[in-house]
Amino acid sequence: MGKTIILRIQSADKKGLVASVTGFIFKHKGNIIRLDQYTNSVDNKFFMRVEWEAKGFALSKDQLQKELPKLARTLGISVQVFYSDELPQVALFVSKYDHCLFDLLLRVRSGELAMEIPLIISNHPDLEDVANMFSIPFYYFPSGKHNATQEKNILKELRSANVDLVVLARYMQVLSKGFVEQYPWKVINVHHSFLPAFSGAKPYHQAYARGVKVIGATSHFVTEKLDAGPIIEQETIKISHEDSVEDLVMKGRDLERKVLAQAVQLFIQHRLFVDGQRTIIL
Amino acid sequence: MGKTIILRIQSADKKGLVASVTGFIFKHKGNIIRLDQYTNSVDNKFFMRVEWEAKGFALSKDQLQKELPKLARTLGISVQVFYSDELPQVALFVSKYDHCLFDLLLRVRSGELAMEIPLIISNHPDLEDVANMFSIPFYYFPSGKHNATQEKNILKELRSANVDLVVLARYMQVLSKGFVEQYPWKVINVHHSFLPAFSGAKPYHQAYARGVKVIGATSHFVTEKLDAGPIIEQETIKISHEDSVEDLVMKGRDLERKVLAQAVQLFIQHRLFVDGQRTIIL
Amino acid sequence: MGKTIILRIQSADKKGLVASVTGFIFKHKGNIIRLDQYTNSVDNKFFMRVEWEAKGFALSKDQLQKELPKLARTLGISVQVFYSDELPQVALFVSKYDHCLFDLLLRVRSGELAMEIPLIISNHPDLEDVANMFSIPFYYFPSGKHNATQEKNILKELRSANVDLVVLARYMQVLSKGFVEQYPWKVINVHHSFLPAFSGAKPYHQAYARGVKVIGATSHFVTEKLDAGPIIEQETIKISHEDSVEDLVMKGRDLERKVLAQAVQLFIQHRLFVDGQRTIIL
Amino acid sequence: MGKTIILRIQSADKKGLVASVTGFIFKHKGNIIRLDQYTNSVDNKFFMRVEWEAKGFALSKDQLQKELPKLARTLGISVQVFYSDELPQVALFVSKYDHCLFDLLLRVRSGELAMEIPLIISNHPDLEDVANMFSIPFYYFPSGKHNATQEKNILKELRSANVDLVVLARYMQVLSKGFVEQYPWKVINVHHSFLPAFSGAKPYHQAYARGVKVIGATSHFVTEKLDAGPIIEQETIKISHEDSVEDLVMKGRDLERKVLAQAVQLFIQHRLFVDGQRTIIL
Repeated sequence: MGKTIILRIQSADKKGLVASVTGFIFKHKGNIIRLDQYTNSVDNKFFMRVEWEAKGFALSKDQLQKELPKLARTLGISVQVFYSDELPQVALFVSKYDHCLFDLLLRVRSGELAMEIPLIISNHPDLEDVANMFSIPFYYFPSGKHNATQEKNILKELRSANVDLVVLARYMQVLSKGFVEQYPWKVINVHHSFLPAFSGAKPYHQAYARGVKVIGATSHFVTEKLDAGPIIEQETIKISHEDSVEDLVMKGRDLERKVLAQAVQLFIQHRLFVDGQRTIIL
Repeated sequence: MGKTIILRIQSADKKGLVASVTGFIFKHKGNIIRLDQYTNSVDNKFFMRVEWEAKGFALSKDQLQKELPKLARTLGISVQVFYSDELPQVALFVSKYDHCLFDLLLRVRSGELAMEIPLIISNHPDLEDVANMFSIPFYYFPSGKHNATQEKNILKELRSANVDLVVLARYMQVLSKGFVEQYPWKVINVHHSFLPAFSGAKPYHQAYARGVKVIGATSHFVTEKLDAGPIIEQETIKISHEDSVEDLVMKGRDLERKVLAQAVQLFIQHRLFVDGQRTIIL
Repeated sequence: MGKTIILRIQSADKKGLVASVTGFIFKHKGNIIRLDQYTNSVDNKFFMRVEWEAKGFALSKDQLQKELPKLARTLGISVQVFYSDELPQVALFVSKYDHCLFDLLLRVRSGELAMEIPLIISNHPDLEDVANMFSIPFYYFPSGKHNATQEKNILKELRSANVDLVVLARYMQVLSKGFVEQYPWKVINVHHSFLPAFSGAKPYHQAYARGVKVIGATSHFVTEKLDAGPIIEQETIKISHEDSVEDLVMKGRDLERKVLAQAVQLFIQHRLFVDGQRTIIL
Repeated sequence: MGKTIILRIQSADKKGLVASVTGFIFKHKGNIIRLDQYTNSVDNKFFMRVEWEAKGFALSKDQLQKELPKLARTLGISVQVFYSDELPQVALFVSKYDHCLFDLLLRVRSGELAMEIPLIISNHPDLEDVANMFSIPFYYFPSGKHNATQEKNILKELRSANVDLVVLARYMQVLSKGFVEQYPWKVINVHHSFLPAFSGAKPYHQAYARGVKVIGATSHFVTEKLDAGPIIEQETIKISHEDSVEDLVMKGRDLERKVLAQAVQLFIQHRLFVDGQRTIIL
């Protein structure tokens, strides 16, 4: 697939939005290859993602930057635009578990995830060897009494790497409200249960104790409230009485990998919107 | 949800189709609540389904009937239009197995499937009691040497009931090419395997003999070639060495019910398009 | 498959249990066709279900009734024995929703569930027509201020029908502790969420509000604590932001049917054991 | 879990096998922690796997080696015995795709697969860097006109590494009948379709062309007939008309990894039996 341009709109619903935006693209000779929209009729909110071929489109990047605000002003909406060939910069935060880290690194290696990983950040030194395997800078910021300072240091690194997305790939440390606010709807976590069940610590132990017959994993946006942000993706798998807590941990790893990779994929394809407590995936 | 109007387009791809059609709807004060389109960029084909609220739309049914052809002519496409409050008439064909029949009848009863069943046709008398339970006319056309005559009689009944869709709910009789051509892309069958594996007779026996670890069911459009029409929906379930052929038959029933009901739902919501050997679901 | 005899053991673990029991069956010329056992090594508990052909077994029913207690005494365990041709008597409790009721009735009709339904009990008159369709006695006990009296009346009916299992097929009324104690581990309920998430009222509304990406259903043993008994079976299905609460209700019905039917199947095949908060399925 | 001993039996069915074998274990003070058996009543075949704690068992490895043949002779069966602490030696065969290779290496690294990988064999040089990452000897045997010679060289390496299992982790080269016979039921392959559909070359292209709505992957024992050996594990995933062949390839990778890892896990836990065209998993 050739280079494409992606436009995102999130606004109050009003008649004619689709017609106006597609009319604008058509006027400038853009060939739409994908258009998705969703109207939340309860709250009267409108979400739209439209993607068209860069080839043949009459406006240069600079021209589009000038014309779009005019269109937006006319329609009373705000818009975001992305070019498919500008790879998102994604920071990975890890602790000791390596399965989500390996999974994301390998999906980038295979070309499945079109993004770059400029750095890996950890509160433990354990996974530096994995970072080295893939020649990615590894920053070790031990957690402890100076967490506020550590977060400042981390933010400095993220900024100098122009990070677009922070992915907590089994990062075992709660980020402060102040930190999260620096990356609004740009921090994604994986929790090893089907939320809202078994939030907090040791979800597989909780699941075992309750005697459930399915376990799950959840990827979600991080907010200041633990494990309570908008959910992006969830997967479950059947288990039986024969599975020990260790078996659940093992089986869950496959789910964690999958829901986190899928959340990252949706984000970097600009397909994720937040609507209150819910995510819209276009 | 209130009454809606649904427009379907299937044509060669050309720039501006979305803009023109949504512009038309907007001009006549229609509020779009759902728009889906798909472009097959290999074959350059365009598919679109757009649904808007009848309330507030400026054109009456008669007016729309007049205006649409003009729009279509201008764009060089053909269009179809449906009103959500005009319930499709669906004929059910059955033989001896009752699970798909019951399932469809109950989904209509519960309001899940917005359609009417004017008649049930069978080549066996066994399920007349089920038809009676739901007060639906039951026509028994035994199969045998006079199949051509029987098909004529069946077609007569279908026409007098203004049938929009024929559903083969485990109907164990091959329909002739001539019959199928009377209802192009309007005859849906369920086959009890994940096609293309195990087409033809006794798929569960075939599956058992091959030793597969999943079984499946497939709903598909009927064409003159047995079990080879475009696939609409498929479901699979894991099985084990402990499952006998009888167990497969039993477990498969749940899959058959589900894929057939889903295919019918997609059809009556006007979401199904045929693109060569593939179905597009918008 | 011919007639079989099923022996169940639940006891403290001790060496030689399998050898002793299978030795006993072998001594009396029984041909084992299925043996499953599970040892909870955390709590040192042993569970076993063994099934052998009645044909060729040297002990009559009366003789087995005499010999088994001796064996049990020697081993210091208690045992239960069942004959596959003695059909369990299962009472269905319903309110207004008919999907689980129809599902169980149809699975009995098709021979999938080898049991008899001597009566249907309801706190609403709505589903009497369904009971009539299948010629099953329907008892209407309206709920209200005299619930204690109603439960007494219900118990009387259950006893006179020699009920082995009570199935709450979307019965919207909490049973008293006293009632449940009359049928220990013999009352099964279906809850329309993946427990422990969304227990209590309106789980689909709760799920919608939380913005989950999967919904589920759970069948479980009823205890005095609402929705907190040992879980038997759980199923989940993926949903999207496009699904309204009504869509969740509709999609959930398929899950509810499936987990309840599966729980009933396991119970009547004598495959369910309770181990604290967990079920063991052999 | 401590060290265990595993006994496997595959024989004609006869009464008393379970009793005799468990009696033997009990006599020598073994504590059974898992017993599974299956009787194929169509062909009158018996399969059993029993696992007991090495701790407390009265017979040393040497003694068991002497006593077991006596038991087997008495019962007219043959038996296999394994000790859980003797790690199987598994050779991985690869070509250019790295996802199954990485997956197996990482599952060994995490302790999920209790086995050793003494060597990686390939007909392409591409994946040597992966072998190096994990410090595993890599042998490059290019395919071409001297395949018979190459197979001899490969067999030499396998023998000197005392290989118990050969895993074709997307190895794109057909092995000769002579080669496979050297490792009867000890060569496992992954095929990227739900067999028997789409055997042979380019199954994702075949799947796309047929327009299926699910794709799958299959792990199976290799026999002289291509993609036709007994199936071990199958997984499927839903796809839509929006998925290109490249999307199928990408989505399929997750399935291939999973079914291959699961097949390897079952093999090294000594849980796999072959019964004609079917596998029995105990």
